[in-house]
Amino acid sequence: MKRYLNGVGMTPFGEAHKSTEEMCIEALQQTFIDSDLTPREIDAVVVSNVSSKMNSEKQRLYPPIIASILQRKIPMIRVPAVCGGGGAALWTALRLHFNNVLVVAVDRVLDSPTPLITHEIMTAGENKWEQEEGLIFPAQNALVAQAHMEAYGTTAEDLHAVSFKNHHFGSLNPKARFYGKKITMEQIRNAPVVATPFNLFDCSISVNGAAAAIVSNDRTDIKIIGSALASDYLPPFERDDMTRWEGTVKAGKEAFAEAGITPEDVDVAELHDAFTIVELIAYEDLGFCKKGFSKDMVRDHETDLDGRIPANTSGGLKARGHPISPTGVAQVVEIADQLRGRSGQRQVSDPHVGLSHNIGGAGGTTTVHLFRKVAG
Amino acid sequence: MKRYLNGVGMTPFGEAHKSTEEMCIEALQQTFIDSDLTPREIDAVVVSNVSSKMNSEKQRLYPPIIASILQRKIPMIRVPAVCGGGGAALWTALRLHFNNVLVVAVDRVLDSPTPLITHEIMTAGENKWEQEEGLIFPAQNALVAQAHMEAYGTTAEDLHAVSFKNHHFGSLNPKARFYGKKITMEQIRNAPVVATPFNLFDCSISVNGAAAAIVSNDRTDIKIIGSALASDYLPPFERDDMTRWEGTVKAGKEAFAEAGITPEDVDVAELHDAFTIVELIAYEDLGFCKKGFSKDMVRDHETDLDGRIPANTSGGLKARGHPISPTGVAQVVEIADQLRGRSGQRQVSDPHVGLSHNIGGAGGTTTVHLFRKVAG
Repeated sequence: MKRYLNGVGMTPFGEAHKSTEEMCIEALQQTFIDSDLTPREIDAVVVSNVSSKMNSEKQRLYPPIIASILQRKIPMIRVPAVCGGGGAALWTALRLHFNNVLVVAVDRVLDSPTPLITHEIMTAGENKWEQEEGLIFPAQNALVAQAHMEAYGTTAEDLHAVSFKNHHFGSLNPKARFYGKKITMEQIRNAPVVATPFNLFDCSISVNGAAAAIVSNDRTDIKIIGSALASDYLPPFERDDMTRWEGTVKAGKEAFAEAGITPEDVDVAELHDAFTIVELIAYEDLGFCKKGFSKDMVRDHETDLDGRIPANTSGGLKARGHPISPTGVAQVVEIADQLRGRSGQRQVSDPHVGLSHNIGGAGGTTTVHLFRKVAG
Repeated sequence: MKRYLNGVGMTPFGEAHKSTEEMCIEALQQTFIDSDLTPREIDAVVVSNVSSKMNSEKQRLYPPIIASILQRKIPMIRVPAVCGGGGAALWTALRLHFNNVLVVAVDRVLDSPTPLITHEIMTAGENKWEQEEGLIFPAQNALVAQAHMEAYGTTAEDLHAVSFKNHHFGSLNPKARFYGKKITMEQIRNAPVVATPFNLFDCSISVNGAAAAIVSNDRTDIKIIGSALASDYLPPFERDDMTRWEGTVKAGKEAFAEAGITPEDVDVAELHDAFTIVELIAYEDLGFCKKGFSKDMVRDHETDLDGRIPANTSGGLKARGHPISPTGVAQVVEIADQLRGRSGQRQVSDPHVGLSHNIGGAGGTTTVHLFRKVAG
């Protein structure tokens, strides 16, 4: 692994009903504007998407559409991993033997009635027990939260504090679904219950969007110093401990070992906050704190902008929005913006090392990537 | 690229209504029996499947299910490319930096009423013009065949001869859908028309199945000497010449250049005969003959068992069967069996070089792989 991060780009995440092609073109235009490369200098493409099959566009084989957009007939593969697709695509791109590899992720989730979307998303869960029992992801993650609360004294207020932080960050991010929208702790506390202990604000928001990034062997100002992907069994109930997501532990350890750094070296992190509990567990599983102490991190504001490890300065899946596959690439966009000092009001003070953490399913496919600012 | 082919395995292709998990387990058991490796020695997995989302199993995130089967939490990604998924997964596996990589492809196509299957398969075609106009794959490929017949004097009888050859081979392959079933030219000629010039016997047969292969850095008796993937625009109507599939031309040229051999060196080939015309065009696009002369190859029996380049000794998509993703891996199983001299009544005499050719969509994603028998 000797890759660098070149240009990045993304659409705003939201409800705009553009086609996946239009969103791809927008994200790619931004990426090439941000890059010193042109489409003709791209050697291979890794695409991640899941929705273009299920939505009204009915397109299952997406890479050839990228071939038409770029007017290039180079090698292109598709690497979906549901909500972890963006990270898995990046992980794969870093391992292809080409010089400049484009990663592009797009999903148009908001194109069907909500029950259909729920049904589609649930196909990322286990069939015989979870799907049949109606254990949709909010319910499944609520059980994880209950286990964590019982074991470690984490409270609903701690969960809400994660939501409050991410909504604050999101309100400052022009690409975020909830840009400009101030949310108070009072609003969060009083929101309707989804699945105890979660209320509406503990759950991420489905959006449409696209995001892209170019990785290269040629030196840039950001080196990708660690990259790991771990698998786990599909359903949490097959695991020893529901409050410890082994995919995150394993991928984190491997990425840190490859980078030769420790969790203390991370200056800014994008974490997979599909639900507020998942961000707290990630603090623990990535080694930002000891097991059970994530509640203290949030109580002590350690992941706020001026905290020890600012987390989800983009707004995260909670407030920037979660369009399935593009999430893992949008995390890279945020880390790049932070390391390049262009995050405006949510800019972390002089960060040198960034981390992105992306999960598919309830931990089935997890990637962790580490980025370091270097002399360009 | 310095990979070798280790163990291979597959289920029989057919109508057995086993679950995708059961089929995976069967193909993996055979692969590990065929291999000198155990599941604990596998370092990464590339999965290819498309149907487990659409069929009654409703499983979109397949790699974690392989994690449960193998009881391994190693890196696993999913690389679907509709009918070209198996080849794309192999291409990707060869580029991962791990020592032993398992490729496994599974699809359970025959789990829905035929109109639903047709609808699902059609999502691999272009949406606005092809899908909306009802230009399903048999119709689309029939237009390609008409163009080829007009340009080069190819006849319906030439197409049927490909079917006859592949049914003969399939009748000798215990893993084939039409094993033991003798088909005469008379039966082929008199079959019902599907889309002129195709009748039933010009179209491949949908089946359920799984296939697997292990690629490795460690030396075995089969070296993978060439591997290329090319993209093309999704719809044939965007191309300059419908009778020339640029993905095949490009991937073929690259694979031969990498291997340092020419088409004349190929002793046995597995070609993507989704429709009979596609096999004929592959002869030309891969350089087995000049453009327009594929009809002569089949008239002169050059791709029969004792011909210059025996093609689709497995029975091909036509008679072994086409379960979507597993097809590209089943081709590798056949090439391995041929090079290892265990193809029984359809054994080619002392082959040294084998080729596999796999297509997703109407040429959108094409892979070509070259294998050479070496001292093990």
